[in-house]
Amino acid sequence: MKNVIVGQSGGPTAVINSSLLGVYKTAKDRGADKVYGMVHGVKGLLDREVVDLSTRFKNDLDMDLLKRTPSSFLGSCRYKLPDIDGHEDVYEKIFSLLEELEIYAFFYIGGNDSMDTIMRLTDYGKKINSPVRFIGVPKTIDNDLALTDHTPGYGSAAKYIAATTKEIIRDGLVYDYPVVSVIEIMGRNAGWLTAAAALAKGEDCEGVDDIYLPEKVFDIDKFLARMQSLLKENRSVVIAVSEGVKVADGRYVCELSEHVDYVDAFGHKQLAGTARFLAGKVAEKFGVKTRAIELSSLQRCAAHIQSRIDVTEAFNCGGAAVKAAFEGRTGLVITLKRVSDEPYMCITEEADVHKIANVEKKVPKEWITDDGTNVKTELVRYILPLIQAEITPLWVNGLPRHIRLHSTSTIK
Amino acid sequence: MKNVIVGQSGGPTAVINSSLLGVYKTAKDRGADKVYGMVHGVKGLLDREVVDLSTRFKNDLDMDLLKRTPSSFLGSCRYKLPDIDGHEDVYEKIFSLLEELEIYAFFYIGGNDSMDTIMRLTDYGKKINSPVRFIGVPKTIDNDLALTDHTPGYGSAAKYIAATTKEIIRDGLVYDYPVVSVIEIMGRNAGWLTAAAALAKGEDCEGVDDIYLPEKVFDIDKFLARMQSLLKENRSVVIAVSEGVKVADGRYVCELSEHVDYVDAFGHKQLAGTARFLAGKVAEKFGVKTRAIELSSLQRCAAHIQSRIDVTEAFNCGGAAVKAAFEGRTGLVITLKRVSDEPYMCITEEADVHKIANVEKKVPKEWITDDGTNVKTELVRYILPLIQAEITPLWVNGLPRHIRLHSTSTIK
Repeated sequence: MKNVIVGQSGGPTAVINSSLLGVYKTAKDRGADKVYGMVHGVKGLLDREVVDLSTRFKNDLDMDLLKRTPSSFLGSCRYKLPDIDGHEDVYEKIFSLLEELEIYAFFYIGGNDSMDTIMRLTDYGKKINSPVRFIGVPKTIDNDLALTDHTPGYGSAAKYIAATTKEIIRDGLVYDYPVVSVIEIMGRNAGWLTAAAALAKGEDCEGVDDIYLPEKVFDIDKFLARMQSLLKENRSVVIAVSEGVKVADGRYVCELSEHVDYVDAFGHKQLAGTARFLAGKVAEKFGVKTRAIELSSLQRCAAHIQSRIDVTEAFNCGGAAVKAAFEGRTGLVITLKRVSDEPYMCITEEADVHKIANVEKKVPKEWITDDGTNVKTELVRYILPLIQAEITPLWVNGLPRHIRLHSTSTIK
Repeated sequence: MKNVIVGQSGGPTAVINSSLLGVYKTAKDRGADKVYGMVHGVKGLLDREVVDLSTRFKNDLDMDLLKRTPSSFLGSCRYKLPDIDGHEDVYEKIFSLLEELEIYAFFYIGGNDSMDTIMRLTDYGKKINSPVRFIGVPKTIDNDLALTDHTPGYGSAAKYIAATTKEIIRDGLVYDYPVVSVIEIMGRNAGWLTAAAALAKGEDCEGVDDIYLPEKVFDIDKFLARMQSLLKENRSVVIAVSEGVKVADGRYVCELSEHVDYVDAFGHKQLAGTARFLAGKVAEKFGVKTRAIELSSLQRCAAHIQSRIDVTEAFNCGGAAVKAAFEGRTGLVITLKRVSDEPYMCITEEADVHKIANVEKKVPKEWITDDGTNVKTELVRYILPLIQAEITPLWVNGLPRHIRLHSTSTIK
């Protein structure tokens, strides 16, 4: 009898539930008895919050809805396992729970932080000769995982960013006076998401004027000089900027603001965002109308505009994880290998979790223009296949229908 | 020979180009010779910026793209005509241009400010016995036009707001610690758009916890007390608030912020938004994680999620305007009359422009709960038919395809 358990960790994506479905269906197809879900990841597991997924996915409609539901069906956590040395009690607790549930394989859907969990459990399991297999399923809108061509979740976020950027560009052109729109896009250290704004440009769209990634030092004076020259030639200027751009001394641009929004209960100053700061600078200096637009959480939860390629790959990564475990392998993360660009072909592979956990993959400097104001064609060519094709929402009464999220179940 | 001219004015919507298409196609069907477009509304007309639309819409694909393209194809303006008395020169200029172009009818697609233009031109035309007919075509995401059941543009904005609110609610539930998300929605004086957040609630969604419209006085202390009680019962609290909520002394909530983002070239203080202010208050007081989400321009330009009902009605209003003019009527605005709710049936009617220009229709107090923290079922029942059915974007290479906007043409 083979029971398996699966959890979701870190920030959600528009397709994280497709990976969950990939694990669930493949495990069932390969003869798994029970497929358990950890509620709120390994943190929930420690609290014995576990759900039997077959009681939740009753029919094909449930699974179709699951694929189209944003956010993590099982809930998530940002919990990192402690060092094994000195915290054996935590690991003993987890492994005794896994034994109690007769778990054959443990799957964790997450980013580089979450892969740390797979790594530590693999290492502890080896130490105690546990038969449990541990496999990581890649997930993050940030696309910053090492050794994989890209990560599930990124394609849909990129599609959302490109599509809304096109709409914002259209909107900016409406009036006959100058407007500078600054679009702030997620990605604290890696510019993959912000780079997706480049896809807006095409036969039917002028594209954004500048793109600023955190991989290059941001220079406020050069930025303002650039705005001045853009404003000479354009009625509407649209800029895409990563929330994580930093100036030469290492401070985030948003930290340059003198204006604190509020101080939270932990004493942390909450600062105006990067877009607001830059829009403010432009308004002050050139006296033009500016708009600061934060794409905000929608980047990770806009399931109404999923990339079908992304949905399929997310599902396949879940399936490949089960295959690897059922063939006896452990301590791995599933990766994606691009075989060709045109036509786009991509297969799953496996990588040692130790080479992926806690490593951050940034945009190569060669894919950014030398003056740091845009990205090169190579980067556009890299992203474009990942946003291809659509998956139609199941519209009910005018709105996309979702599946209800789990309700917590505790093992008796 | 009948030439007509059409302009778009005020803020754009996701369906303002469907009204343009309704005017264009109906005028052509009814035998109009030339259909001119004013580039940037009446302001552009005064500068002789006029385009012959038949040179721009060459085939059915152009028209299908036009319907799906957000923002105003012809460009817009916020220009209001001056009083006739003392500014006869402006009116003489416009009417001599209309004579030169042999214009039979003048259509203006816009909100209550834009209808002021139709009213003044009608009045001046009458004074000089001009044969030109003037007809207004309703448009505004704000839904604040008098005498019409609703306005084209509102349904698509409401659909976008409801769909993204559902996604934000899902996203908020991911973690196992308390989060308060404050969604800021457009509508300076009328709460129609913010009310659309109520549609998120359904079989598959908990809905937002509170909805605050500008029609009711906003009380910060009551709001904080309410948040305290919601946080006792919920892990994730989601609030929809209009950008225009005001406290008892008449100040906007966002004006209460002590923190000025920047001072623009005109000396105007740019304040943090309503959502940021409220999220800050909650974070300060209760020490919980908060998120301030401004739906921003996407409310008016998210054409990738149009309501089909809205597209159809926008087109029909354009068509009805041409019909009225070609049957000899003038000084009118097309209105929508809801004949029944279930099944939803709606027809076009006509109203005297003097009764619509500059009038703002607010949400009736009876449709808001007495404590001002939510809307009543009547309001949900009113909005629901307007977001029904979809119109699929024309996806090309992973993104919705648009039509290129006009390039300015000047009459020789």
